[in-house]
Parts: sequence; structure tokens; C-alpha cells
Amino acid sequence: MLLEQYQACIEACQKCITACNYCFSSCLKEKNLDMMKECIRLDRECADLCELTAKSLAASADYVHELCRLCAEACERCGNECSRHEAEHCRACAEACYACAEACRTMAAA
Amino acid sequence: MLLEQYQACIEACQKCITACNYCFSSCLKEKNLDMMKECIRLDRECADLCELTAKSLAASADYVHELCRLCAEACERCGNECSRHEAEHCRACAEACYACAEACRTMAAA
Amino acid sequence: MLLEQYQACIEACQKCITACNYCFSSCLKEKNLDMMKECIRLDRECADLCELTAKSLAASADYVHELCRLCAEACERCGNECSRHEAEHCRACAEACYACAEACRTMAAA
Amino acid sequence: MLLEQYQACIEACQKCITACNYCFSSCLKEKNLDMMKECIRLDRECADLCELTAKSLAASADYVHELCRLCAEACERCGNECSRHEAEHCRACAEACYACAEACRTMAAA
Repeated sequence: MLLEQYQACIEACQKCITACNYCFSSCLKEKNLDMMKECIRLDRECADLCELTAKSLAASADYVHELCRLCAEACERCGNECSRHEAEHCRACAEACYACAEACRTMAAA
Repeated sequence: MLLEQYQACIEACQKCITACNYCFSSCLKEKNLDMMKECIRLDRECADLCELTAKSLAASADYVHELCRLCAEACERCGNECSRHEAEHCRACAEACYACAEACRTMAAA
Repeated sequence: MLLEQYQACIEACQKCITACNYCFSSCLKEKNLDMMKECIRLDRECADLCELTAKSLAASADYVHELCRLCAEACERCGNECSRHEAEHCRACAEACYACAEACRTMAAA
Repeated sequence: MLLEQYQACIEACQKCITACNYCFSSCLKEKNLDMMKECIRLDRECADLCELTAKSLAASADYVHELCRLCAEACERCGNECSRHEAEHCRACAEACYACAEACRTMAAA
């Protein structure tokens, strides 16, 4: 069985991936696109890193702790950007990012 | 908000990714490695395709239905192989694979 | 040794990934962002699918031919969108996309 | 245009991805599978990290330098394991891993 702590972090990453990718495509449909460009960029960066982190946790890759540390920073950055916007997809994404940042920090420190 | 059906399929994919990647690394630690080699190979193929499928669903990519169809086949194949083994990680993986195959078939037909 | 035809298709995919990802981030810096939004979306979709295709070719995954067929379509779509823009990153991306579409079609038919 | 240094590191990553994924599937066909299990595991870990690194370099992601540092270590580890084996796919993989480690270290220090 996967360790409970791993499982929790994987699930936080996966929720964050979905929220970021949904926010990414929703931002691209927003009227004021110029205001969303950092959000679009960071949504993708965050989702891509969470994807490798979730996979590495499930397979117990050698570099998993360093990756979790890096992932926590990317989630924090994306959460901060999303927090600046009113759209529901941004609010939901910020929440998922902060939860994932917290889970990754806990893993990185373990 | 993500459509409910999309959300269900994304979650089935994500559970399948975790089960496949955990099965992958667990198979590599099995004593009778020779017996597990198809399982190792298909675990990875299945996880990699589920990963792109989950991401494409969340971002509503243009090719999402074709990908779901392909993903359903890969999950079926991996589930069939895992079903041949007694190990708990294989049993759990087969279950996740079949559930994901079902969810992807539903999406592909939508 | 990897078959020569596989190798050629992998390299076309990898050039396409780089061109798409560079075009993606360059589009996000363009002044007239609104004009680039389809390009941003398709750059990512195309890069993500090429990534899985290149990996699947190198590892001879079971679903590699179907994936090549799907990838050829995504490359064609992205190339068509990039062709509508004057920016150098779009021109280079269109070229890489069409070359990859051609290579993937050849593989899919093999 | 992508900076020349970025381009060189992307290409080293892409060659390493192909070599690792080809070595992965070739190892799974080896007779003495037990001897190859660390190689199989590290081939995948290395390929997956190189994939994110190449993508991040092309899109100038914020975390690209830290990722290059991590990637250099994974390549070194995989290269060391591959060097222990006589098979041609392992020899070629070790070479691609060491070249990628070198390119990533240079990027990380830039």
C-alpha cells in the first residue's frame, strides 16, 4: 500500500492539476485576456510540475523530495497570481494551489 | 465549472495513474521479475496515456474524445494483464484500470 | 538500435515540441494577445500530444500508430493557426508542425 | 529566437529522453531481467524529468534552473547504472545521460 502521506500529497497534486488546467483554458476565454496572461503562464507551469510530482510520488522516484520542494514554490506562485482575480476558476485554482503547496511542503520536510 | 461527466472521467484517470505507477514500482521489487515484465511495460503505457487524457479533459482539448477512446483500450489491456497476478498492487491496479476504461468509453461516446 | 523511421518521427516530434513551447511563451508576450489566443491554446495541445508520441515511439508502445494519427491532426491544426500570424515564432512553429504532421502520417500508415 | 544555450540543453535532454525510453523497453526484453531492474527504474525516472526540463527550457518556466540542477543529478545516476551493463542500448544511454547531465549543469550554473 502507498503510504498515507504519499497518497494525500498525490491527491492534492491531482486536484491542483485539474484546477490549473481548467483555469488555463477558462482564462483563454476571458474578455480581458491581457490581465490573465500571467495566470495562463503560471497555470501551465504549475500543472506540469504537479504532474511529474504526483507520478514521482506514486513510483517513489529518487528525486521526489526535491521535486516536492520545487512544486510547493510553483503552487505558491500560481496561487498568488490566481488570488488577484475575481473569476470563479481563478478562486478555485488558488485554493487548490495553496492546498497542494502545503501538502508538498509537508512531504519535502518528511 | 467543469462538466460533471468530465470531472468523473478525470478522477478515474487520476486514480488509474496512481495505481499504475505504484504497481510499476512494486512490480520492479517482486521476486519473480520475469513474470511481471508485461505488467511493468503496460503499467507505464497506461499511466502515460491516462496522464495526457486527464489533462486534455480538464483543458477541453480538441482531441479529447479520440484520446479517451485510445485510453479506454490501453486501460483494458493493462487491466487484463494485472488481473493475471495475485499481488495486491496488481489487483488494485486492475480495478482502477477497468473503472477508467469504463469512464473513458462513456466520454468517448458522448 | 531504434528503427530509422522511428528515429526520424521522434526527431520531428521533438522539434515540434520545442517550437510549440517557444511559440507558446512568445505569444503570451505579444502585444495583441487577443489575436494569439487560439495559437496559445493549440501550441500547448500540440506540444503535449507530440511529447507522448515521441516517448511512445522510443518505447514502442502498443498504441503508437493510433497516437501518430491523432498527433498528425493536432500538428496540422496548430500549423494552420500559426500560419495565420506574421511573428517569427509562429512561422517557425508552423514549419515544425507541418514537418511533424508529415512524419506522423508516414508512421501511422506504416 | 531561443537562446543558443537553451537550445543546446533542450537537444541534450531530448536525446537523453529517446535513449532512456529505448533502453527502458530494451531492458524489459533482456534475458537476465533481474540484473536490469535498477536500469529500468532509472531510465524512466530520468526520461520523465528530462521531459519536463526540455519543456520548461523551451517555455522559459520560472523554475527552470532548479529543474536543470535536479535533472543533472538524475542523468548522472542513470548514466552510472547504465555504465555497469554491456548491452548496446545501455552504453548509448549512458553516453546520452552524461551529455545531458553536463548540459544541465551548465544551464543550472548560468
